[in-house]
Amino acid sequence: MRIAILGGTGEIGEGLALRWAYHTDHEVVIGSRDPERARTKAEEYETELSSRGVDRKVNGFENAMAADRARIVVLAVPAYHVSDTVEAVADGLDEGDVLVTPATGMQRDEDGFHYHRPGAGSVTQLAVDAAPEGVSVVGAFHNLAAGRLADLDADLGIDTLLVADDDDAKETVRLLADGIDGLRPLDAGGLANAPEIEALTPLLINVAMHNEGLHDLGVRFD
Amino acid sequence: MRIAILGGTGEIGEGLALRWAYHTDHEVVIGSRDPERARTKAEEYETELSSRGVDRKVNGFENAMAADRARIVVLAVPAYHVSDTVEAVADGLDEGDVLVTPATGMQRDEDGFHYHRPGAGSVTQLAVDAAPEGVSVVGAFHNLAAGRLADLDADLGIDTLLVADDDDAKETVRLLADGIDGLRPLDAGGLANAPEIEALTPLLINVAMHNEGLHDLGVRFD
Repeated sequence: MRIAILGGTGEIGEGLALRWAYHTDHEVVIGSRDPERARTKAEEYETELSSRGVDRKVNGFENAMAADRARIVVLAVPAYHVSDTVEAVADGLDEGDVLVTPATGMQRDEDGFHYHRPGAGSVTQLAVDAAPEGVSVVGAFHNLAAGRLADLDADLGIDTLLVADDDDAKETVRLLADGIDGLRPLDAGGLANAPEIEALTPLLINVAMHNEGLHDLGVRFD
Repeated sequence: MRIAILGGTGEIGEGLALRWAYHTDHEVVIGSRDPERARTKAEEYETELSSRGVDRKVNGFENAMAADRARIVVLAVPAYHVSDTVEAVADGLDEGDVLVTPATGMQRDEDGFHYHRPGAGSVTQLAVDAAPEGVSVVGAFHNLAAGRLADLDADLGIDTLLVADDDDAKETVRLLADGIDGLRPLDAGGLANAPEIEALTPLLINVAMHNEGLHDLGVRFD
């Protein structure tokens, strides 16, 4: 399957791109607002993979062109760019395409990071509201430490939570997540359950900040 | 140390009472609005412990009398009873006593459970607002499945998160948590970080509801 990672030059995008290219046969394309930057990062990912004996083609495009080429479109952008990114690529999305959103909203104060819940109800819901008709949204990959994800030497051994109202789309993304070694996808129900998942990301950062020896934290449900 | 567990006849109170009596030398007293019920449950806990070769005295009292006798007072009551429980026992709390709050606010709809954040900011903050001067509040023990906690045959192997503004009080509760086999206390910062911890409880329930074979879930930060 071809997966487009919009904002694929950022930290979480890099981690997902490398992991899918390294652990699976899915074709990964990188999107960015700046196509030149997308191409440069795509080449960097190819070099990183090649250094590990994995020769994979990773292409870079402007976001809309990347989205147009894939059935699965990951919105690896900050929460405040979720809506405009979906709108910018909407013409290239076809019925049956699936948008995947890992973004969360956070604010920082002197105590730590806090979940900043959008008026729409969740960041996931921002993607739903902006998505063209017939395009499903799945919330996933929120609680992955970007640095650990992008370090192919690091064992994951962590869970990721999926929310969607469209069961077929959720199953498609579950299989994509399951293809990444050490990542266990768990079903967290419908889109209405997104806020509690998005709120887990600032909690992970707070725990990492306050406990020596814990960093790049993930979570495991046992 | 003597620990009073108010609402100690409920599920989470039972689990904490049994675990502390079983794994540590701390003296546990059970509080309830109904002193007769507190005494009956305390005897049940003694019988359960005795059946495992552990002879421990567990006393039951009306909440205020239980609180009066202990330095550590756990508010094992539903979120909507946190404020009135603190007010009901306030006369028996002395400067330096520590209130521990594991409660969270939840609402259920057809999709699952959702964090219901109180206007005060968090359930933990409700306890802070009701606490007498000189009495510190620590948020802890939110994300423990009650049934698993109360089953002394069950290995825990999970984490609990602590929030407090008073570092000494937090350290006292950290040591109490650390005394329970298989429970790892982690520092999650100040009281302002409580909402994300309280929001984890409905998420755990949602994940348990939607994944076969997962129930009585805890969480581990790795």
